[in-house]
Amino acid sequence: MNRRFVFSIIARLSLGEGALLLLPAVVALIYGEKQTLAAFLISAVIAAGAGMAVLLLIHPKDSVIYAKEGFVIVALAWIVMSLFGALPFVFSREIPNFVDAFFETVSGFSTTGASILENVEVMSRGCLFWRSFTHWIGGMGVLVFMMAVVNNVTDRSIHIMRAEMPGPQVGKLVPRVKDTAKVLYLIYVALTVIEAVMLIAGGMPVFESIVHAFGTAGTGGFGVRADSIAGYSTYIKIVITVFMLLFGVNFNLYYLLLIRRFRSAVRSTELWCYLAVIVSCTAVIALNVRSLYASFWPALEDASFQVVSIMTTTGYATADFNQWPELSKGILFLLMFVGACAGSTGGGFKLSRVMILFKSIGSELRRMLHPRSVNSVKFEGKPVDKTTLNSVYTYSAVYVLCGAVVFLVLCFEKNFDFEANFTAMVSCLNNIGPGLGAVGPASNYAAYSWVSKLVLSAAMLLGRLEIFPLLIAFSPSTWRRRLK
Amino acid sequence: MNRRFVFSIIARLSLGEGALLLLPAVVALIYGEKQTLAAFLISAVIAAGAGMAVLLLIHPKDSVIYAKEGFVIVALAWIVMSLFGALPFVFSREIPNFVDAFFETVSGFSTTGASILENVEVMSRGCLFWRSFTHWIGGMGVLVFMMAVVNNVTDRSIHIMRAEMPGPQVGKLVPRVKDTAKVLYLIYVALTVIEAVMLIAGGMPVFESIVHAFGTAGTGGFGVRADSIAGYSTYIKIVITVFMLLFGVNFNLYYLLLIRRFRSAVRSTELWCYLAVIVSCTAVIALNVRSLYASFWPALEDASFQVVSIMTTTGYATADFNQWPELSKGILFLLMFVGACAGSTGGGFKLSRVMILFKSIGSELRRMLHPRSVNSVKFEGKPVDKTTLNSVYTYSAVYVLCGAVVFLVLCFEKNFDFEANFTAMVSCLNNIGPGLGAVGPASNYAAYSWVSKLVLSAAMLLGRLEIFPLLIAFSPSTWRRRLK
Repeated sequence: MNRRFVFSIIARLSLGEGALLLLPAVVALIYGEKQTLAAFLISAVIAAGAGMAVLLLIHPKDSVIYAKEGFVIVALAWIVMSLFGALPFVFSREIPNFVDAFFETVSGFSTTGASILENVEVMSRGCLFWRSFTHWIGGMGVLVFMMAVVNNVTDRSIHIMRAEMPGPQVGKLVPRVKDTAKVLYLIYVALTVIEAVMLIAGGMPVFESIVHAFGTAGTGGFGVRADSIAGYSTYIKIVITVFMLLFGVNFNLYYLLLIRRFRSAVRSTELWCYLAVIVSCTAVIALNVRSLYASFWPALEDASFQVVSIMTTTGYATADFNQWPELSKGILFLLMFVGACAGSTGGGFKLSRVMILFKSIGSELRRMLHPRSVNSVKFEGKPVDKTTLNSVYTYSAVYVLCGAVVFLVLCFEKNFDFEANFTAMVSCLNNIGPGLGAVGPASNYAAYSWVSKLVLSAAMLLGRLEIFPLLIAFSPSTWRRRLK
Repeated sequence: MNRRFVFSIIARLSLGEGALLLLPAVVALIYGEKQTLAAFLISAVIAAGAGMAVLLLIHPKDSVIYAKEGFVIVALAWIVMSLFGALPFVFSREIPNFVDAFFETVSGFSTTGASILENVEVMSRGCLFWRSFTHWIGGMGVLVFMMAVVNNVTDRSIHIMRAEMPGPQVGKLVPRVKDTAKVLYLIYVALTVIEAVMLIAGGMPVFESIVHAFGTAGTGGFGVRADSIAGYSTYIKIVITVFMLLFGVNFNLYYLLLIRRFRSAVRSTELWCYLAVIVSCTAVIALNVRSLYASFWPALEDASFQVVSIMTTTGYATADFNQWPELSKGILFLLMFVGACAGSTGGGFKLSRVMILFKSIGSELRRMLHPRSVNSVKFEGKPVDKTTLNSVYTYSAVYVLCGAVVFLVLCFEKNFDFEANFTAMVSCLNNIGPGLGAVGPASNYAAYSWVSKLVLSAAMLLGRLEIFPLLIAFSPSTWRRRLK
């Protein structure tokens, strides 16, 4: 393995994070939060200093990397970013415990939105900004971000991009990797700005608008209020619903729209399936919770918000759905496993994987009835190649396995029941945020032990990076020097 | 499709069930239960009469069948057997509601052991015998049973056997299908008799010994007492633990022992994995529940009994594990998804499938790191062929899908929470019996609505027949006449 190059990339990323940490410092400065400002400046110096030190020590001979290096870079990058990102919370004494701060930061970068904060409303503006800003960076991917801004990106970087981008298939939109990263980020920035402006237009304070735009764009879920979005106006709720929906769509479709290939964009079966699932689930839940509301419209409003929020793995809440009837809770629970479209900022298992699995059931049925016929699984009009199909299957297997392990560790907790533990696992592994029961939208993860918090942090990273990069980075054989 | 042949097989099976129903009638006669005796005689006449009538009406032109007919025969056979098998409960007024009786009978044949009886101890001996006898018949398969006893079995019947036998791969032990069925049933009968004798030797009344031997052999779980096995002696508990363990092993291994190929038998990796899982889970649970017991031995006794009972999908209980700490409950919950060895009478997902999925994760990791290398998944020392691998994957997908649908229907219930609904689904789909919470080992399924009971009955059949036969039997295209 090209260790030097791997470490130099991570070091450059730390340097980059040092720069990013100056943004919340500016926010702290604006709002006159001295302690917070100091915390961010110290953290920025540490992150940048560490990166600089490594860069001075290590000189990669070449930048030749393969798939393995791609996975290792991505896994290490996310862990290092989260470690440095947790520092300001600790230094500002707003989250004095490092494990808690790490959990919160991983939850931010992985766009989960699960929080250990018992009272988010006492946090400083600087910290609130950073929390949501991590969502925004993590949504599109920290390395994709770097590729978009750094100059010397070779086409080998596709290995990094492929390792970081979620979903069963990753393609380059445009021939050069750097340009693909740029196009994606341009769409991302544009949509975020439009949302922030629309929120401001609806009367939301500028700071909160930016924070919520970050949270929606990354499909994260961190906000500034204890009741999430419940206290805002109907207009705000609708704007956020629409943008959650938009950020859950495959970004390739926006690119197709940009280059005016409208027909290709609307031909996406994943898009239609996504909309169909959202509409049908919203309808059922709205009818199911109707009796809890004075009229049908607020029920529909909350139902659609919650369905979109869970399906896109954002995790904002306008209602404590933990109090809803079992049927609504059951539907939301199952939606947690579906996730948003591939190529979106949403996490989870990904709708396209679910669709491919469904289709392969049909193909197997045909094979059982006509053993000699030739069957292939088709998706988006094209047959899915064997390698993709296989990786969808094995991803499903390793996903269930990780879920089982995380769940088992949570079972060591004394004060959490089956519902809380199981949905905490599901919620973190799918980067959603809230679960059911004791980890419902009106609660938080503070009461878990530090072991469980670390395991849930691991689950969030596993979910965001789709497991394999971390497995590869932590398997001893990856690091063994080959004898020559 | 060869409809005439399909219906004639089902008709012969009804005739056979008519004969089987005479056995509990004899039991009722011995214990002087007049009403029960009458109920079984009437049911026998109805089942046999219906079978006879169809046989007189339908004359199959030939016995040429393919995979499709095999699946349809198996699906219809199990439904018809359960419909007729429910009659005696209704006629004797012991389970007056037909849906309840059907649930109980499906639970019997599918070797689930989930019950709607609020008080099993007031049941007549005849009904108790029939309940457990359905476990015994269902354990090895109703059609395998028929093939073992009926004369005109052609080698085409492998299609039926393959559709009914659980597990990823079904082979013939001996060249002729009929002989395979006979060998399997001989081993089955021998083990059941030995268990019954050992239970009698331990002081259990003869009737109860036979009932529990049936329940263990089929890995069912119906007993005669409200507290299942908890009230019996340590000797009885150990005997049942050992036999549950034995019936969870692939029967092919017993055949290998019979023909003195000892080395092949002990070389089974599935067997060793099965034992390793049981031993390790028992150890963890025993330590975890230690504080609930006066000493370590009773804790180990209950832990081993419960682990084996859940892993083999039997469902007997010596302790209300619903009261155990979350860790123990969590382990038992995860074991519900594993199931016994393929080719055993146990239900569930099957250990061999889990092992193949695990191994395919490793293979995928290798492919990701070395895209051009040739990888294959090996199991029991041989590479798993693509078709088997694919069917393991798609079975997993359709299994999760069925679970989701069943769970969603259960969510319509007003009085059951997440834990009860989710584990009821898992327990029925895996043919175990008890779940957690309101469907724990100290409770029953009586409070579910008739819709949920029917859906759970469907789940039990889906689990026992491994889903595809029922999907094929109920897909309209199967029944469509082809235009010539």
